[in-house]
Amino acid sequence: MASDKRLVLGVAGFGTVGTGLTSILEENRDWIIQRTGREIVVKTVLVRDVNKKRAVKLPEGAELTDDPARLVNDPEIDVLVELMGGIEAPKALILQALNAGKHVVTANKALLAEDGFELFRAAQQNGAGLYYEASVCGGIPIVQTLRESLAGNQMTSLVGILNGTANYILSEMTTNGLDFDTALSQAQELGFAEADPTLDIEGFDAAHKLCLLIRLAFGRDYPFSMLPVQGISGVDRMDIEFAREFGYRLKLLGEVRNVDGRLEAGVFPMLVHHTYLIARVGGAYNAVRMEGNAVGPVFLHGLGAGATPTGSAVLSDIMAVARGCAPNNTGFVEQVPAPADIMPPEEAEACYYFRVMVRDQPGVLRDLAGAMARQDISIAQAVQKGQDPGGVPIVFMTHEAKARNVAAALEDLKGAGLLLAEPVHYRIL
Amino acid sequence: MASDKRLVLGVAGFGTVGTGLTSILEENRDWIIQRTGREIVVKTVLVRDVNKKRAVKLPEGAELTDDPARLVNDPEIDVLVELMGGIEAPKALILQALNAGKHVVTANKALLAEDGFELFRAAQQNGAGLYYEASVCGGIPIVQTLRESLAGNQMTSLVGILNGTANYILSEMTTNGLDFDTALSQAQELGFAEADPTLDIEGFDAAHKLCLLIRLAFGRDYPFSMLPVQGISGVDRMDIEFAREFGYRLKLLGEVRNVDGRLEAGVFPMLVHHTYLIARVGGAYNAVRMEGNAVGPVFLHGLGAGATPTGSAVLSDIMAVARGCAPNNTGFVEQVPAPADIMPPEEAEACYYFRVMVRDQPGVLRDLAGAMARQDISIAQAVQKGQDPGGVPIVFMTHEAKARNVAAALEDLKGAGLLLAEPVHYRIL
Repeated sequence: MASDKRLVLGVAGFGTVGTGLTSILEENRDWIIQRTGREIVVKTVLVRDVNKKRAVKLPEGAELTDDPARLVNDPEIDVLVELMGGIEAPKALILQALNAGKHVVTANKALLAEDGFELFRAAQQNGAGLYYEASVCGGIPIVQTLRESLAGNQMTSLVGILNGTANYILSEMTTNGLDFDTALSQAQELGFAEADPTLDIEGFDAAHKLCLLIRLAFGRDYPFSMLPVQGISGVDRMDIEFAREFGYRLKLLGEVRNVDGRLEAGVFPMLVHHTYLIARVGGAYNAVRMEGNAVGPVFLHGLGAGATPTGSAVLSDIMAVARGCAPNNTGFVEQVPAPADIMPPEEAEACYYFRVMVRDQPGVLRDLAGAMARQDISIAQAVQKGQDPGGVPIVFMTHEAKARNVAAALEDLKGAGLLLAEPVHYRIL
Repeated sequence: MASDKRLVLGVAGFGTVGTGLTSILEENRDWIIQRTGREIVVKTVLVRDVNKKRAVKLPEGAELTDDPARLVNDPEIDVLVELMGGIEAPKALILQALNAGKHVVTANKALLAEDGFELFRAAQQNGAGLYYEASVCGGIPIVQTLRESLAGNQMTSLVGILNGTANYILSEMTTNGLDFDTALSQAQELGFAEADPTLDIEGFDAAHKLCLLIRLAFGRDYPFSMLPVQGISGVDRMDIEFAREFGYRLKLLGEVRNVDGRLEAGVFPMLVHHTYLIARVGGAYNAVRMEGNAVGPVFLHGLGAGATPTGSAVLSDIMAVARGCAPNNTGFVEQVPAPADIMPPEEAEACYYFRVMVRDQPGVLRDLAGAMARQDISIAQAVQKGQDPGGVPIVFMTHEAKARNVAAALEDLKGAGLLLAEPVHYRIL
């Protein structure tokens, strides 16, 4: 069934995921042979500086190089494993590898989301596999699930916790009452957040992943540049506590829904009722809940990052190559998806959580409710906290309202001089 | 990439799953072509009685037959979809189909678990695919996940809610305070339980599935006939309530663990702490939590039965055939797994929940604790309920204890004449 020939890898990048992958290849060597019938070996590892001291040892027999050409010109190498990060350099390398008839396994969500179509076309022209299970949600098999296991379903919605760093920070703020800056510093100390955490906490990493998931689930192109994205850097512990009192958790979610044929999508901090499984996803875990017109809801949960969880996803792709799978790169016959019919973000409807800081005086709640009513926004519950003459928070949750109306109501309130501070509002899942 | 040739199915059995499959094939027809490049059509449907009135209409162009030979002798049919149930008849049909060079998709967990190896050998000899995603946990892609997505992992444990009927009954007992018989009748009325519910409530259906999952995850044969199995027919609402007070839910679980190279496995009602995701799996849902040495824990949740969820799983297998996937039937090069090194059930260690009914008099708790201590069983917490002179329950939870010692302690207690009723004990996950 499987060939006895070894499968030879060239690995570009030897950071967290690269070392995770090589450690699994070593530890599970015999197991992988039982599964695929082939030995998988690393021949060449591309790094920036071959002389840098490394704590991790190279795989046996592998050689270091700083010359990308060594990976793509070596006819012995069957698979390029791209774990460099960045956009331009890996793009060039992947294209060369595909055109040289090699299969490619990558974890590069930014590249695929922002500039991936040329790669998929090149893969198709060369009959090569372009695999990227590790690019979304680490060890969770979400790519395979959407591309193959649920392939017969027309999806109606998908929502996920797609970034472990943001989820760790929000979880710490929720569970241990930390403020944002403390939780972020802690995440950095523990290695859950990078020195420059912008991509994670501003939601762009989650947005890259959401772009890829939309393609896999809906077969449509929702350009990364058009996705509404809001991060968590402005989140106040106070809102997490109010949300809790109403039975909700605050989570950074990537969401997409098919609303009468149009896709409504975005990355936002959102309130999730505590009885939902996705509300219970803690720490550095990721999760995705998707719903198909045949299967109903399916929920996947696991570690979204880390050396060996992400390495496990990379390895599953490599093993698919080793088994001689026919490439199914995008999950569709067409390698470049048609443009999505995008619902303009201001038309999106959701229930909302609001917090406004107001003076504790008669008529304030009436004026607030009036501004909402003028925009057809119906208040479901409201609570005023404390009795500080300097200003008190009023928190209220609404029934379904259009984003456009929410924006107008907030403008109204600001114009009326009612608010002592910038108002806060989050969607409710 | 994909051939333009239609993929032609012969479907054996036209019950719930068969009608679910054909309805998805019709509703998602264009979508499936976008995914695979091929039209998938049903040519022949095998039923017991071709003259029976059916509420569901046949797929367009399909013909009914009561002659199994029509499915396997027709050279136009590419795939046999076996949804008949039973063991002997489907086994014969599947073997004929494989030997005729057809691929086979089946949902038949009982056949595969009790008598599947001959089928896998025949598939291999014929270079055919033998697919069975629908045989375990309905729409949840657990087979694909273990066989491919987590294939690079050596698994350390797997635990799941593998039977929706039993889970529905326990959920109703927990949430609505029903007793077992009422909950079972309700499940039958709603179509969640069959007229003869033995396979579901006595744990055998879950055990069939566990057998298959053990093969997929560990590549070992743990014979169905050797699996310890305990159902839920004896469950008393009282224990569900006591468990709740301690923060636990009672769930029927299939579990397997690798303990120093030996597999400890079985199907039991078990207490699960409410903070675990698996404790929150309600109604007819299924879920599986598995842990691999690279990926860590992964949790999958979805509908475990029903026409279109199970149909979705059948369809994913059919679409894999349509894409021309290389067969990977067992997930291993060897099609018949080596025997598992089985841990004798009496050596298994777990924490336990006990309830005993005793007379409310001095010294009883001392005697109970003494019987436990003589078997090296350490009590973690205990509570005595009520003050009925006719007899009161004492509930206690233990630290880790061997099943053998638990059995001996229970014998001891019974012999000492302390117990007014049969004692109850459950493992704690």
